[in-house]
Amino acid sequence: MDLNQEILNKVQDVLTSATDEDKHVLSQLLNGLQAKHSGEYKTYITSFMKTSIQESEDQLEMSIPITPFLSNSVDIVHGGFTATLADTAMGTLVNRKIPENLVAVTSEMKLNYIAPGVGEELRCEATILHLGSKTSVTEGKIYNNEGTLVAAASGSFYLIPR
Amino acid sequence: MDLNQEILNKVQDVLTSATDEDKHVLSQLLNGLQAKHSGEYKTYITSFMKTSIQESEDQLEMSIPITPFLSNSVDIVHGGFTATLADTAMGTLVNRKIPENLVAVTSEMKLNYIAPGVGEELRCEATILHLGSKTSVTEGKIYNNEGTLVAAASGSFYLIPR
Amino acid sequence: MDLNQEILNKVQDVLTSATDEDKHVLSQLLNGLQAKHSGEYKTYITSFMKTSIQESEDQLEMSIPITPFLSNSVDIVHGGFTATLADTAMGTLVNRKIPENLVAVTSEMKLNYIAPGVGEELRCEATILHLGSKTSVTEGKIYNNEGTLVAAASGSFYLIPR
Amino acid sequence: MDLNQEILNKVQDVLTSATDEDKHVLSQLLNGLQAKHSGEYKTYITSFMKTSIQESEDQLEMSIPITPFLSNSVDIVHGGFTATLADTAMGTLVNRKIPENLVAVTSEMKLNYIAPGVGEELRCEATILHLGSKTSVTEGKIYNNEGTLVAAASGSFYLIPR
Repeated sequence: MDLNQEILNKVQDVLTSATDEDKHVLSQLLNGLQAKHSGEYKTYITSFMKTSIQESEDQLEMSIPITPFLSNSVDIVHGGFTATLADTAMGTLVNRKIPENLVAVTSEMKLNYIAPGVGEELRCEATILHLGSKTSVTEGKIYNNEGTLVAAASGSFYLIPR
Repeated sequence: MDLNQEILNKVQDVLTSATDEDKHVLSQLLNGLQAKHSGEYKTYITSFMKTSIQESEDQLEMSIPITPFLSNSVDIVHGGFTATLADTAMGTLVNRKIPENLVAVTSEMKLNYIAPGVGEELRCEATILHLGSKTSVTEGKIYNNEGTLVAAASGSFYLIPR
Repeated sequence: MDLNQEILNKVQDVLTSATDEDKHVLSQLLNGLQAKHSGEYKTYITSFMKTSIQESEDQLEMSIPITPFLSNSVDIVHGGFTATLADTAMGTLVNRKIPENLVAVTSEMKLNYIAPGVGEELRCEATILHLGSKTSVTEGKIYNNEGTLVAAASGSFYLIPR
Repeated sequence: MDLNQEILNKVQDVLTSATDEDKHVLSQLLNGLQAKHSGEYKTYITSFMKTSIQESEDQLEMSIPITPFLSNSVDIVHGGFTATLADTAMGTLVNRKIPENLVAVTSEMKLNYIAPGVGEELRCEATILHLGSKTSVTEGKIYNNEGTLVAAASGSFYLIPR
């Protein structure tokens, strides 16, 4: 049996008992696979999280919809996703400000979790505090769609040859 | 058209053009949905990451296989997954040490990224530095299967009524 | 021999061989002792550092002169003093915003050191990100008198009964 | 009036009204000035804090006596001194492991404050987690003389030409 058929069988198996929530998560993941495949996203995880970007001169905003895919065991956004959003937003901002032959790699990151990640959307406003030739220091504030500050992040990046 | 049929159509659509990597990621996600549905995991993300736990008296080890699902844009484990692993391992350890009526919620976390997340597996060794009645302070060391220290984490948790 | 005479003898001994820098440090410390004794400062270290405060509605600025007392082994401000300034500025701000029967105790702090601490003055702008009934999260930006961002800090405080 | 005479006058002035605590702090500072002048210490602050070092193969321990000089406004060790001790211990360890032509400069540091800094002594056990050619990552655990974990620190250093 080829991999395609194996996957289809597994999907049918999953669907037999899946909850509506399971189905919506699966649907989100399939959309993510398509978007990744189409080249819209460079990584699976950002495609699954459905990150979208708004960039101004000095800042970058990255948003994600809050869905069950993101939930932790007490039904708020898992802190790991907040961290992933912050890391990705800050790193993307740095990558857009450095020469093409360099890439930003996270050297450290800290997050303060301030309010539960609930609502319809999380949005990280990333700012560069320092951009040198070898390193960058950034910060990010993560808000939900009601403007509540959900988390505050700071991070450092090494700028290394691609 | 019902949701099941919609999903099946989307799967077939995805499979038409999917790379082998895409298919393996989808396969991993479907296994994750099943494991989550079976009650083996409490959250989608830990089920997709396929976390496994080994616990000794004072420590908890949480491992995940390194797969394309975890990759960042330069083909190493996305720092967000390392953060998710650390957060989950430290939080799980705290939750196992506190009374049933309490739950640990991350208040802050810091990670130092030390070596690229490459290899077959990431493993976080979580330790409690302090466990009070209202807060806990923990640390985590993340190694790959070759024993390389990939990241070091520290985190604080509030212990709140469930 | 009483303690006063012992101290005077020791001062004379110190002065015999002291460099001009030593003498200026001693002079700064004596001024600090007087200011502490007069009640102008609550702690020796802030009195020696000669902290001064400017407060606006939501922010607090704390400044210190850069003197040899603060130097590390490579003649810039010791990172420990930058940390002390940040901790004190953020903590002072929180203490001014909470009821009199509570006191803010630092639970964690992180600093990113961005530029060498050189110039005539360091100034920390402290801001509150979150103020609850039991905890507060703050941040601080440390600039020198030329407006260079020297360091960025974030910190959490427990609010406990005095 | 020359600087020496000015200082002596100021000392006499201070002594007129000084408390016993003030006098002991002054005495500690004068000892620190002598020790700095003698070359025993490279910086004023470590000399005033009276740091002492014990080094084993992979670790460095740095201790300081707990005295009123270190107190914050609620009579425990000021978190800034704990940070200074951690920064100095971790930095000293790195400096002892790198070539003579390099010097370690702190790029970031985080501290979790776990128990009040009380007792007779604080001792920081510093460990290197990573030592590369350009950066180092370290951690430090700060205990008091009763073995209570007072704080946990992590820090990164840039290794730059002297």
